Amino acid sequence: MTWTQPFAADSFPSGSGAFPHKHLLGIAGLQKWEILYILKEAEQWVALNRSGPAKHDGRLSGLTIINAFFENSTRTLLSFEIAGKRLGADVVNMHAAQSSVKKGETLIDTAMTLNAMRADAIVIRHGSSGAVQLISSKVDCPVINAGDGSHEHPTQALLDSLTIMRRKGRVEGQTVVICGDVLHSRVARSNLFCLKTLGAEVRVVAPPALMPSGIEAFGAQTFTNFDAALDGADVVMMLRLQNERMQGDFIPSPREYFHLYGLDERRLALAKPDALVMHPGPMNRGVEIASNVADHVERSAITEQVEMGVAVRMACLDILTRKARGQEGWS
Amino acid sequence: MTWTQPFAADSFPSGSGAFPHKHLLGIAGLQKWEILYILKEAEQWVALNRSGPAKHDGRLSGLTIINAFFENSTRTLLSFEIAGKRLGADVVNMHAAQSSVKKGETLIDTAMTLNAMRADAIVIRHGSSGAVQLISSKVDCPVINAGDGSHEHPTQALLDSLTIMRRKGRVEGQTVVICGDVLHSRVARSNLFCLKTLGAEVRVVAPPALMPSGIEAFGAQTFTNFDAALDGADVVMMLRLQNERMQGDFIPSPREYFHLYGLDERRLALAKPDALVMHPGPMNRGVEIASNVADHVERSAITEQVEMGVAVRMACLDILTRKARGQEGWS
Amino acid sequence: MTWTQPFAADSFPSGSGAFPHKHLLGIAGLQKWEILYILKEAEQWVALNRSGPAKHDGRLSGLTIINAFFENSTRTLLSFEIAGKRLGADVVNMHAAQSSVKKGETLIDTAMTLNAMRADAIVIRHGSSGAVQLISSKVDCPVINAGDGSHEHPTQALLDSLTIMRRKGRVEGQTVVICGDVLHSRVARSNLFCLKTLGAEVRVVAPPALMPSGIEAFGAQTFTNFDAALDGADVVMMLRLQNERMQGDFIPSPREYFHLYGLDERRLALAKPDALVMHPGPMNRGVEIASNVADHVERSAITEQVEMGVAVRMACLDILTRKARGQEGWS
Repeated sequence: MTWTQPFAADSFPSGSGAFPHKHLLGIAGLQKWEILYILKEAEQWVALNRSGPAKHDGRLSGLTIINAFFENSTRTLLSFEIAGKRLGADVVNMHAAQSSVKKGETLIDTAMTLNAMRADAIVIRHGSSGAVQLISSKVDCPVINAGDGSHEHPTQALLDSLTIMRRKGRVEGQTVVICGDVLHSRVARSNLFCLKTLGAEVRVVAPPALMPSGIEAFGAQTFTNFDAALDGADVVMMLRLQNERMQGDFIPSPREYFHLYGLDERRLALAKPDALVMHPGPMNRGVEIASNVADHVERSAITEQVEMGVAVRMACLDILTRKARGQEGWS
Repeated sequence: MTWTQPFAADSFPSGSGAFPHKHLLGIAGLQKWEILYILKEAEQWVALNRSGPAKHDGRLSGLTIINAFFENSTRTLLSFEIAGKRLGADVVNMHAAQSSVKKGETLIDTAMTLNAMRADAIVIRHGSSGAVQLISSKVDCPVINAGDGSHEHPTQALLDSLTIMRRKGRVEGQTVVICGDVLHSRVARSNLFCLKTLGAEVRVVAPPALMPSGIEAFGAQTFTNFDAALDGADVVMMLRLQNERMQGDFIPSPREYFHLYGLDERRLALAKPDALVMHPGPMNRGVEIASNVADHVERSAITEQVEMGVAVRMACLDILTRKARGQEGWS
Repeated sequence: MTWTQPFAADSFPSGSGAFPHKHLLGIAGLQKWEILYILKEAEQWVALNRSGPAKHDGRLSGLTIINAFFENSTRTLLSFEIAGKRLGADVVNMHAAQSSVKKGETLIDTAMTLNAMRADAIVIRHGSSGAVQLISSKVDCPVINAGDGSHEHPTQALLDSLTIMRRKGRVEGQTVVICGDVLHSRVARSNLFCLKTLGAEVRVVAPPALMPSGIEAFGAQTFTNFDAALDGADVVMMLRLQNERMQGDFIPSPREYFHLYGLDERRLALAKPDALVMHPGPMNRGVEIASNVADHVERSAITEQVEMGVAVRMACLDILTRKARGQEGWS
């Protein structure tokens, strides 16, 4: 499908245009039309955010959104906080550093506490895969996964696909290369699910020790040679190298890593001439990506990704709270 | 008195239905009708919070509420923050971790700074008993004690009594057992004052080393044997065991503590068949309370306590700022 | 000029009353009328803040203000947060402790991220001189310097001048003594620029090791003897002694420092009988200032400084976002 054309009516289940999920725990399990539904909805928020300084919509007025971040993440937290506030919600942040979790409270008790305070949506970041799903099973309101362990980070994948759609016109048929620590990356997992569902060809590139076994079953082509993977690529998506992997068994040294798996100008030239450069941020310049590539005026979509992030999160908060607000279907 | 009946007119001082205190520093010193006044007012906020997603009331619009937390407390901070925002106030949090207190500023200077910023209410949590009162003496606006040292935690006691009233119909005549580290517990102190003032029978249970001397003078019956105290109990209120007491002189071991003072099914069976289980949270499951007791569908009121907490804090913020807002009496 | 008289029309460039700067990075470079413009605008916010509990103005409704604090500062952060919220803006705080900066992101990437989220104003505190200017060069929206290294802290100087104007009627012709660690103080620098531009006589007092060389070129008279500097002073502005200077090479001991450079009653008597005492806070009582001087009912303007801080920051946020909001000139 092309982004610029209106969505065909038959892309949606007959009789209903409503989003059929209570939570957004991951991309796995979402149908193509459901992903497109969110991306389509996000477009109005891109427009609102660009409309000028007074970029407010009151539809979540009176709702309480709790951002429960058990892992630090400035960007994602800021993005969700801004998204909720622009929709008029009361946004409350719960930081792990000040949390009862340190007092030994179980995750379930924390979930039940947030629920008893009558949250209308809970956004959760947690270091353990599955923690967000566990919480979602104990609360009445929608839960949005803002990244859990090495499991999923669905809003990141959604904003990445929205960025590709807007820059390339479509996701279907694009050749997307994802390079880095695929093994530990929830960004890679969510993007693989999202891009495959939308019809892209996905190539994953990683050092052998950081390539998950069996990833081919999810539709990925695997490469250990970055240069070979770049041939014919429409999009090059770099993963952040976590500091804790930079020393020791996985990575010999940041310099060596850059030599083998960093994106520099020479490598970018191996992709298609108009290939898009993406990175979820924050970047380690000179480790996984060269500065001049990251800052490339025409090719880099990195700051656009950040912008799309706010819009996608506004869409998710709006869509998932519609049922409680007595709204249904397209806005 | 019964909760379900309207308040009798003669419960209040003749000629005025207004709350006569500027601050809420503790339960000690409050008259029975004053406590009931707050609990009665909280009922409307329980109803609002349950009314649906758009649970907003604009009466504190334009007011600045500062939550000055010199001690970490996720639950209480979240509860006050949500309470203030639902009433439309501008809520600002001051965390100790980032505070001038670390730079050596005196508490009084901090108080005068918050005052000069024209706060309309200041909510304070502090590790030292009396710190909140000291601050209240230096500022123009109402101060609410959100827990100070081992002194008082009045909103906790209010939410506990509101929970008992709603579940049992009344507080008067109830037999309430409070078990744990009574010596260091501001929750126990505030509850003892509140429950006695409302006419309950209060039994406190603690290891000998953690039982304050002279507590009988405040109307409590003291027990070192938990089993004996439970006979005929309507409510069993467990206290949180602070981590810092779990080792050393006070407690031989968490396991030993649970054996002697933990609430499990066997012990709960010693209380009345419909006895209520309460805990201020966060819980140490398996230390002061067994998981199946904490999660008991009919008997445990623990998540309801959290819910009542938001409502009671909304009531306190509303009531204490009425004078400045030119409002008086019942809402 | 006198504050109580209306501003003369010829104080402003002909044909325009609009503030001609995009950012507020420092006082250096501001013309006299520009400083007066901000101070004049702040007066309405002093009035609003004193008008009662519902002190709200909706002019920044829908705008996103990000407070990016890479250095802890409770007072300044609270002041900006309250200022933004009173004007109706969505205010989002980014604390360094939870920031990507710790993950190695460059400052420029952080700036571009905040920009991509469509911030309408960014308030920055940073430990490095020049960091705020660097960020301002990478974003589309106005940037306000909330203190950078030992460079500038312009809103502090503005609130200090507003305080002097309100208490003394004018800044011009006043003799202002600034005493303390002038070498490392951004407060001293910004105040020197501001006070000189407004026509005050400025004397700086510091231990020889903490006196910047060449400061006379900026119009300051230098003293190492505090007593001598106080003769005829209208205002005594004490600087905070940073803890990190209290030991080691710069300061022999806090006690010795107080003996030589602390402001006590005896020294205050050397200034004019109605001399004003100022301190940017938080104070080290007994180190740079005696408690009875800090608390002097008639002479100390320290809490008034805090109050003026909120008003000045409201003025800055309003003025700098006017262009984007399609507003111009005097409010």
